[in-house]
Amino acid sequence: MDFSSDTSAPAHPAVLDAMQRANSGMEGSYGGDSVTAHLRELVSDLFETRVAVLPVGSGTAANALALSMLCGPTEAVACHREAHIERDERGAPEFYTQGGKLHLLDGEHGRIDEADFKSVCSRINRSFVHETPIAALSITNLTECGSAYDVAQVRELSAIAKAAGLKVHMDGARLGNALVGTNMAPADMTWRAGIDVLSFGLTKTGGAGCELICLFGDMADRYDELLARAKRGGHLPPKMRFMSAQAVALLETGLWLDLARHANDMAAKLVGAFLAVEGVRLAHPVDGNEAFIYLPDALSDYLTGEGLKAYRWLDGSTRFVTSWASSEDEIRNVRQALDRFSAV
Amino acid sequence: MDFSSDTSAPAHPAVLDAMQRANSGMEGSYGGDSVTAHLRELVSDLFETRVAVLPVGSGTAANALALSMLCGPTEAVACHREAHIERDERGAPEFYTQGGKLHLLDGEHGRIDEADFKSVCSRINRSFVHETPIAALSITNLTECGSAYDVAQVRELSAIAKAAGLKVHMDGARLGNALVGTNMAPADMTWRAGIDVLSFGLTKTGGAGCELICLFGDMADRYDELLARAKRGGHLPPKMRFMSAQAVALLETGLWLDLARHANDMAAKLVGAFLAVEGVRLAHPVDGNEAFIYLPDALSDYLTGEGLKAYRWLDGSTRFVTSWASSEDEIRNVRQALDRFSAV
Amino acid sequence: MDFSSDTSAPAHPAVLDAMQRANSGMEGSYGGDSVTAHLRELVSDLFETRVAVLPVGSGTAANALALSMLCGPTEAVACHREAHIERDERGAPEFYTQGGKLHLLDGEHGRIDEADFKSVCSRINRSFVHETPIAALSITNLTECGSAYDVAQVRELSAIAKAAGLKVHMDGARLGNALVGTNMAPADMTWRAGIDVLSFGLTKTGGAGCELICLFGDMADRYDELLARAKRGGHLPPKMRFMSAQAVALLETGLWLDLARHANDMAAKLVGAFLAVEGVRLAHPVDGNEAFIYLPDALSDYLTGEGLKAYRWLDGSTRFVTSWASSEDEIRNVRQALDRFSAV
Amino acid sequence: MDFSSDTSAPAHPAVLDAMQRANSGMEGSYGGDSVTAHLRELVSDLFETRVAVLPVGSGTAANALALSMLCGPTEAVACHREAHIERDERGAPEFYTQGGKLHLLDGEHGRIDEADFKSVCSRINRSFVHETPIAALSITNLTECGSAYDVAQVRELSAIAKAAGLKVHMDGARLGNALVGTNMAPADMTWRAGIDVLSFGLTKTGGAGCELICLFGDMADRYDELLARAKRGGHLPPKMRFMSAQAVALLETGLWLDLARHANDMAAKLVGAFLAVEGVRLAHPVDGNEAFIYLPDALSDYLTGEGLKAYRWLDGSTRFVTSWASSEDEIRNVRQALDRFSAV
Repeated sequence: MDFSSDTSAPAHPAVLDAMQRANSGMEGSYGGDSVTAHLRELVSDLFETRVAVLPVGSGTAANALALSMLCGPTEAVACHREAHIERDERGAPEFYTQGGKLHLLDGEHGRIDEADFKSVCSRINRSFVHETPIAALSITNLTECGSAYDVAQVRELSAIAKAAGLKVHMDGARLGNALVGTNMAPADMTWRAGIDVLSFGLTKTGGAGCELICLFGDMADRYDELLARAKRGGHLPPKMRFMSAQAVALLETGLWLDLARHANDMAAKLVGAFLAVEGVRLAHPVDGNEAFIYLPDALSDYLTGEGLKAYRWLDGSTRFVTSWASSEDEIRNVRQALDRFSAV
Repeated sequence: MDFSSDTSAPAHPAVLDAMQRANSGMEGSYGGDSVTAHLRELVSDLFETRVAVLPVGSGTAANALALSMLCGPTEAVACHREAHIERDERGAPEFYTQGGKLHLLDGEHGRIDEADFKSVCSRINRSFVHETPIAALSITNLTECGSAYDVAQVRELSAIAKAAGLKVHMDGARLGNALVGTNMAPADMTWRAGIDVLSFGLTKTGGAGCELICLFGDMADRYDELLARAKRGGHLPPKMRFMSAQAVALLETGLWLDLARHANDMAAKLVGAFLAVEGVRLAHPVDGNEAFIYLPDALSDYLTGEGLKAYRWLDGSTRFVTSWASSEDEIRNVRQALDRFSAV
Repeated sequence: MDFSSDTSAPAHPAVLDAMQRANSGMEGSYGGDSVTAHLRELVSDLFETRVAVLPVGSGTAANALALSMLCGPTEAVACHREAHIERDERGAPEFYTQGGKLHLLDGEHGRIDEADFKSVCSRINRSFVHETPIAALSITNLTECGSAYDVAQVRELSAIAKAAGLKVHMDGARLGNALVGTNMAPADMTWRAGIDVLSFGLTKTGGAGCELICLFGDMADRYDELLARAKRGGHLPPKMRFMSAQAVALLETGLWLDLARHANDMAAKLVGAFLAVEGVRLAHPVDGNEAFIYLPDALSDYLTGEGLKAYRWLDGSTRFVTSWASSEDEIRNVRQALDRFSAV
Repeated sequence: MDFSSDTSAPAHPAVLDAMQRANSGMEGSYGGDSVTAHLRELVSDLFETRVAVLPVGSGTAANALALSMLCGPTEAVACHREAHIERDERGAPEFYTQGGKLHLLDGEHGRIDEADFKSVCSRINRSFVHETPIAALSITNLTECGSAYDVAQVRELSAIAKAAGLKVHMDGARLGNALVGTNMAPADMTWRAGIDVLSFGLTKTGGAGCELICLFGDMADRYDELLARAKRGGHLPPKMRFMSAQAVALLETGLWLDLARHANDMAAKLVGAFLAVEGVRLAHPVDGNEAFIYLPDALSDYLTGEGLKAYRWLDGSTRFVTSWASSEDEIRNVRQALDRFSAV
């Protein structure tokens, strides 16, 4: 019963198999290999448009490099107060933008409040040299609270951003879970909804360590700059084929969406089991593979004693994260533990 | 006949096998896994001392993070004019040190000239606020010219550095090749010779993508700072077990040295074949798995036509790099091509 | 009737006279002059302790350099949401700390709320590598809302900070006004209350362009680092005597406090005149030389027509700033304009 | 007999007088004042073209901000090995470019060697992601060795730079001295010769603390970016009128050139006096107000005993700097001291 994080899960076997298959013969280094070439085609196909894509080894690298393409050192990025780029990346966005600022936005359940964002945009004054102007918006989908934006919401936020002259980034560390949860196509959720740069997460979905920075539209013309920034950040691995192979394995057959769907299903079942217990309630809607659940203290203690692993959150709720590797057995174990608790 | 780079070679099968074995069950993320714990022990054993070790995905990341521990933003690092950190890392050291400078030193065959370095050290004036003082020395072994420093030379450079109050870094992207070439123990070549921080390369040796930043002595006490810097740089991968597993596979059985020895042997045979041809000569001593060879134009053209892959260097020589995957067959093919050429 | 800013005022004549007097003969450059030497003594006398002091040309430079001594690139500074360092310095703190973050605190009238700060401190977790830990607190006195902290409040905030292992900075761009308003000694308001580094503003008080970075206690031992950072920032002017002369003129005779007292008095009279008008009220307490006043629209329009200069603030109030150069005549003109308006 | 530096000289009285005159009434802050407006016109007139100009308080600030407009963080600036930006600015260019590199060029007497520069340009490979490409050339005139480039030389270097796609910066900390020495017009020496951005020094010429960053041609369109960078660096002083007044005083009447001519004359006379002594020789041509003179040890010791102040250089020569404040009396004193020495 380990729901501590989808980063604690192993990689899907198909991912390791693909790495094995890629491990043959001499290949061009630093992305000049045939696997990466294949990946580039796959990603453009998947998004139904030209995409300039770079695999990197962590979500923090993907986000920080992506933001450095959108926000200069005298500018700012607007994001939700709880966003991963603000709370969990140890200043990586500030490092890669070289001192850019994050402008924090409010909003329930981890979703940016449109009215707040509109109001913030209305106060941007690029001719006032003293204040740092906002240059980009970053949207996280799934949000840090496990909720999803649907396409209409992303489109609306993008429209406000574009009207104010901002570029738009999506942190899609759990993009697959958000897509499955909202039943939308990758293109609709991203560039068609106004996203300029996407951090496309595959590690939590089932990879071993691979995230894709995707540049859409005009941004794709700046791929060389992204490469230079990545190289300077130490994110141009010599044997890139092993990173690209992971992405190919997940994307080529739609496996990534299957895995995300499984994780979401497991989360739904987990939530179902918990909500059957009196006094238990959700902190946020569960739109993907994360559930934040308020547990009575006695229940929380009991489950810990039974070996359950999950993070206690700052708001007092407990975060459960399911993954491709979560099993019906685990859910059953939880249900049985809950039954035992209720029976006492 | 592909001698373009050891980064073009695949990983050794044992490396992929170890990744497969690591791919089982839930594990703590961001380095909190059992494989990384095992790696930490292995590395301390290997170096016969306490080592604080962090795996990262590229040599550039290893070097830049290592240097950022030794050189502040108003300081400089002394290194050879041809060093990888100066020539091939797109300003990563300047990025991670946040504006530190590289002070370039002269020296034949990629080795820092002791007299030049001593003279540079004698001019450091920390009380003169206008000039950037040197805070650290970076030594590359194997050098960028394929030559090696022996232990005595490293010790001598370190002693000069220490006398001037500098810390010492070693870029050991091809450390295995240097050790095999000089027949020395890892501890003797590193901390016992005055090295404070080591970039311990394993990717070129036979890994898929794994370098180890090793902090020796007092530096090990600053491991938390290294972690914070790595996280900020996007170099704390969530599923670190897959990186650590590579290092374990290479280090546990001494495989890394076997692979380095094989690469060095192939380079020696390659050189032997070339030197048998009239008009061919070496640009630098061949102490590891790299050979810089001056080829007559006609020969160079002929070999290219025969499918040989190798880089033309700025000095007019051609760089051949062998790897664990280079085979006797390839050497034979080269020898036969040379014979055919000579026969014309 | 120009109350747009104390930065729009000229310098006090004594300041220019002192610059004239300093303009004689050869002097050591970059701070090696006799005027700067004299200033150093004066400042230590004024604060009744050893102070390491560096004059710089802008408050932004003073604040950003000061913070760079207290906050590393993987750390954060806590400050009020409305602080100058957050709102009006175009990312200078992020630039000089090289990517450090500002953590924004709430509080009425520009003063940091103790409970909010205590709660923020309680959540600092230095062993959690993902989140940026707070390393310093920055207090602005006068606040950006024209209110002052008294010594007890500064001491209390400092105590919370120190208990959490933070250093404390004071942005004293209008320190004189705060001291006069609270009737406290410089030492009591600063180092005795726990301030480690002070940005001591003299330009708004009556200088031509001179702010002093003051390092107290242990921080004074790091003066060489401050010098190096200042030089690197372009803030070590070759003819520093002209900056130091300004500070000497203001500090030597207590002129700075006389000028601050005058400015505060003018603000009090201005407020008195406004509060006599029906429908007018203060947005914040007026503890120094700034008044934020809610004016009925008709009155606001009328005064603008009469030539009044003052800034409309985001909260709908109007900011009036008096200075050493504000005159009784100007106050009388305002009063008469208000009378004319009321008579209509 | 103080020839230690032109930064040790006072300001010309006209400069202080102009500051006095500027010290009257309320003025817009941060450059919104009438004096700065007047300066902008003056500078455009002087250079016979539209110039976007920003006054800053130090040459280091001028150079570093100027370079940050021409060189991004993944790029490099080519400059002479002895350039001030490399040797005497404590990493300010690296700080303001946020990690850009300086690529050092050779050349006699502080002048960049055209052939070396051409060769360096020919090796720039923007498509090779690993190596930092050069984006700009920085020319110092007067050079750090006291020699001047004439217009033809500047034009030639610019032409090589432009052909390679580089922008060109001139560090004109002693531009007046170079112009007087070469008898050229400001426009001819700068934008007509290909200079895009100029650091126009006035402090050493006779100011109290004022350098002008001048953007020519297309660069002038990026003035807002310069302002943002300056603000972020703490280089937008609230009472800018006092900086601008200095420049107005020097430029309006041609005083700056008169003062530079005087300084150059004094240097010529000083050199004349020295060269009359046996065993004395010049290290470099004396084209402005700096002379590097090899003195026999006995003479050097004798002069020091007589109270002469001048810097011993690394190459063994002694650097003499004259200024607007150097007097015939001082030269006579030197001559007499030399006579006394020779008579022994």
